[in-house]
Amino acid sequence: MFDSRFQSFDDAADPTQGKARVAALRQELRSRGLDGFLVPRSDEHQNEYVPKSAERLAWLSGFAGSAGLAIVLLDKAAIFVDGRYTLQVREQVDVEVFSPQHLVDAPPETWIEANLPKGGKLGYDPWLHTPGVIERYDRAAKAAGATLVPLESNPVDAIWHDRPQPPLGAVKLHDASRAGDAAPAKIARVREALAKAKSEALVISDPHAVAWLFNIRGADVEHTPLPLSYASVPKEGPPTLYIDGRKLSNSVRDALGDIVDIAEPATLLGALAKLGAGHARVRFDAATAPAKLTQALEAAGGTADVGTDPIALMKAVKNAIELDGARRAHHRDAAAFARFLAWFDAEAPKGELTEIIATEALETFRRDTGALQDVSFPTIAGAGPNAAIPHYRVSHASNRKIEPGIFLVDSGAQYEDGTTDITRTIAVGPPTAEMRDRFTRVLKGHIAIARAVFPKGTSGAQLDPFARKALWEAGLDFDHGTGHGVGSYLSVHEGPQRISKLGTTPLEVGMILSNEPGYYKAGHWASASRT
Amino acid sequence: MFDSRFQSFDDAADPTQGKARVAALRQELRSRGLDGFLVPRSDEHQNEYVPKSAERLAWLSGFAGSAGLAIVLLDKAAIFVDGRYTLQVREQVDVEVFSPQHLVDAPPETWIEANLPKGGKLGYDPWLHTPGVIERYDRAAKAAGATLVPLESNPVDAIWHDRPQPPLGAVKLHDASRAGDAAPAKIARVREALAKAKSEALVISDPHAVAWLFNIRGADVEHTPLPLSYASVPKEGPPTLYIDGRKLSNSVRDALGDIVDIAEPATLLGALAKLGAGHARVRFDAATAPAKLTQALEAAGGTADVGTDPIALMKAVKNAIELDGARRAHHRDAAAFARFLAWFDAEAPKGELTEIIATEALETFRRDTGALQDVSFPTIAGAGPNAAIPHYRVSHASNRKIEPGIFLVDSGAQYEDGTTDITRTIAVGPPTAEMRDRFTRVLKGHIAIARAVFPKGTSGAQLDPFARKALWEAGLDFDHGTGHGVGSYLSVHEGPQRISKLGTTPLEVGMILSNEPGYYKAGHWASASRT
Repeated sequence: MFDSRFQSFDDAADPTQGKARVAALRQELRSRGLDGFLVPRSDEHQNEYVPKSAERLAWLSGFAGSAGLAIVLLDKAAIFVDGRYTLQVREQVDVEVFSPQHLVDAPPETWIEANLPKGGKLGYDPWLHTPGVIERYDRAAKAAGATLVPLESNPVDAIWHDRPQPPLGAVKLHDASRAGDAAPAKIARVREALAKAKSEALVISDPHAVAWLFNIRGADVEHTPLPLSYASVPKEGPPTLYIDGRKLSNSVRDALGDIVDIAEPATLLGALAKLGAGHARVRFDAATAPAKLTQALEAAGGTADVGTDPIALMKAVKNAIELDGARRAHHRDAAAFARFLAWFDAEAPKGELTEIIATEALETFRRDTGALQDVSFPTIAGAGPNAAIPHYRVSHASNRKIEPGIFLVDSGAQYEDGTTDITRTIAVGPPTAEMRDRFTRVLKGHIAIARAVFPKGTSGAQLDPFARKALWEAGLDFDHGTGHGVGSYLSVHEGPQRISKLGTTPLEVGMILSNEPGYYKAGHWASASRT
Repeated sequence: MFDSRFQSFDDAADPTQGKARVAALRQELRSRGLDGFLVPRSDEHQNEYVPKSAERLAWLSGFAGSAGLAIVLLDKAAIFVDGRYTLQVREQVDVEVFSPQHLVDAPPETWIEANLPKGGKLGYDPWLHTPGVIERYDRAAKAAGATLVPLESNPVDAIWHDRPQPPLGAVKLHDASRAGDAAPAKIARVREALAKAKSEALVISDPHAVAWLFNIRGADVEHTPLPLSYASVPKEGPPTLYIDGRKLSNSVRDALGDIVDIAEPATLLGALAKLGAGHARVRFDAATAPAKLTQALEAAGGTADVGTDPIALMKAVKNAIELDGARRAHHRDAAAFARFLAWFDAEAPKGELTEIIATEALETFRRDTGALQDVSFPTIAGAGPNAAIPHYRVSHASNRKIEPGIFLVDSGAQYEDGTTDITRTIAVGPPTAEMRDRFTRVLKGHIAIARAVFPKGTSGAQLDPFARKALWEAGLDFDHGTGHGVGSYLSVHEGPQRISKLGTTPLEVGMILSNEPGYYKAGHWASASRT
């Protein structure tokens, strides 16, 4: 009856391979005269969802989380993960091979400074790190009397013999009836921002920004319709889209050809060298630009102006057509979710439902709309104690029966007119007095955000406390932000605005933000609304 | 019946002197081969209240505000003030001589870059600027193809023939029955902080920090019992207090001699040169250290570690004795204020009261306690439209009759056991419906802050929106922070904690903060609680 097309429930992690793979990597490093290598969980665009070809950290270590870094030296190795993954990492990797570290409390810099041998060479793939991160690691290596060395090819790729090919998802046009603004108008706005920043060109390394600027969508990673690619917008003359030509049908190529030059990604470094030779000042996105690109420009004599990509804010402020699409998408999604709730109400009391069945049912109701392109992230469907794990993802191993208590569903969908993200806390059977109290406090927070009236210039950081006040009054809180930006048939997590202590971007009319306070009773249950 | 001992109502500003004084300054600059000079409203400690000998900006320009900067070039001059003073500056200075600029919207850096002649030399007094500010101005001067030059003596002093002598206020001991902790225990805490910062020594340039560390108070500036002085605390060995010996009685000198070496301020540069020669890393306070000090250290080979003075946070967290003193001071102050209110209630309806009479009465009721050392800032007593000027200070020229409507009093006192700051909005006659509504919204904000319950780690920035919510709901707001730290018989404005958009310091048990939302109806009246 139900099935899942966009999500799997396999236990991706396999801690048993780490030992042999790290040994092979060390042999490769020795043959290159290196003393260590950095293996981040990132692709060439710092994406949240990366293609399988970029899952080097998972392949090497077994760790399947969405953020992390391994540092492999010849005699020891460490893996750095944040607070979400401190338990998970110990299940997924061989801790005899990788010593788990806390990414924030014991950052890689400190470990590098303490463990890198004097005179040692620590290699890195300059496509996989931003310039700011490399600067920090470089300082740490220097403090250890060692050197950080950019490599021409990735040593993991040399030993990963069945590494998947990079994806070649077909690019589709995201036409004006959905995008609202035409690409030339958007390009003109980017040029205005360039003039203000006194830069000769903008290099776009975030595929979300590429997708927005040229009104295209792709199919290279899961859950977000990204066309993996780079682009550059010069002060004058046509922009260039650096994309594998095999992703473009003739008709898409023709349509794009009117607004942008199309080039193979391999030509980007040459283009930067040319800009550098002319001593150009070029804006790069601090959040996503690979160090490889800024290094190519600077080596040729240019100035890398590493700052914000002005497209991030333009993309965050939706136009009337996008807002209309978002409303339609949410109505459609809400109807599918209501069908799910009705089904759940009827079935749950029978005691046979599991987290996986519920996840499959929800995806199926969404597919029944005929408009579902993908889920916008793997559904978080947690029963009982699993509900209290903020980034829970059900697998065959973790799958629980849905019994009386709390069932939490945090899920979303990708439709061509909009992206959704909704959470519901469902009581199976009568909730306890404590559950009712916590649910009410979370709901008060949600309502305070929903009803907030505030002056121009107010940031998400200023609204965030309204979501927490009722919890604070009972000595409670939740350990994540209250809301994040949501894309328009793009990423379900979109910046720069957010409702959190760190959300300093002023909110603007047209931004879409989630509203997700929560309460987690570790080991027991949760009442929440969040991703 | 009433009079004022700690406040004057003179119009300090005189715009007619500026022209001749700037001409004299230009002649002095030419004789030194300079193309310009920076005249900030600051003393050698970046104090809020500065001694008369440091009022160079007021003397030169007529501007009497508490923050500002003039840049005098040979053919033009500008004066930079913030939003509080944009109207006032046009009344107090000759705008033919000084072109008024907005300190934030059109900052000095931009003006320097645009106006400094190529190859020009812009002089500055390195005792009057922090290293961070000088770094910014230096970049701007370089961008103009010019140079920023530290001067050995201040050119304004050379032409200000009747410049007052620097103050020599007597130092008093602030004994343990008021301070709670003894100086040696405080010094030990500073040493712990030094070890964490991996610094050889801390240079204390904030006289509030000097006063706190050694449990002394002074009498060098108005409204705050500051002993103008510097100090240094080495990792090992006794600290040194750099203070004019004439401020110390024999008994004070004897008492201090047990815990600190006492030296003349002129010896500080030599001590820094010695530290520099030993390649020491020395912590300076970014907020108050004069560039002169970091330059002296660096010129000799040391490393200036410009950061926060760890004392700021220690001083902000009051101990039980200080908190007890604060409560006693507030009870005493509240009784005096209640007497003032009773008197006001009886007198105001007669229609003869003025802002000055009310200010004198309030100070007199406070003096009648027998414990008043000073007011903690010039009383802000505004009737009608004057109430709506957030930093109003009554003078003979601005003095208004107190007529039916709103009378706002924001005032505070210095007692040896504590510093106070309270604001009351008083209706003279029946208030209008609008006044009642605004007063209620401000009161709701005040109550929300007063009743706030929040987890450890919460900052003032997170509480600030609670003070504004009721105003925001009516499309209103106030254009200042909600609360600031308050000293313990020290400054009425004390950091690092504050309740404002910028208050990122986590609040700690023992901190004292004011709670001052407000509403200002420009040109009419205000309902507020603020300084």
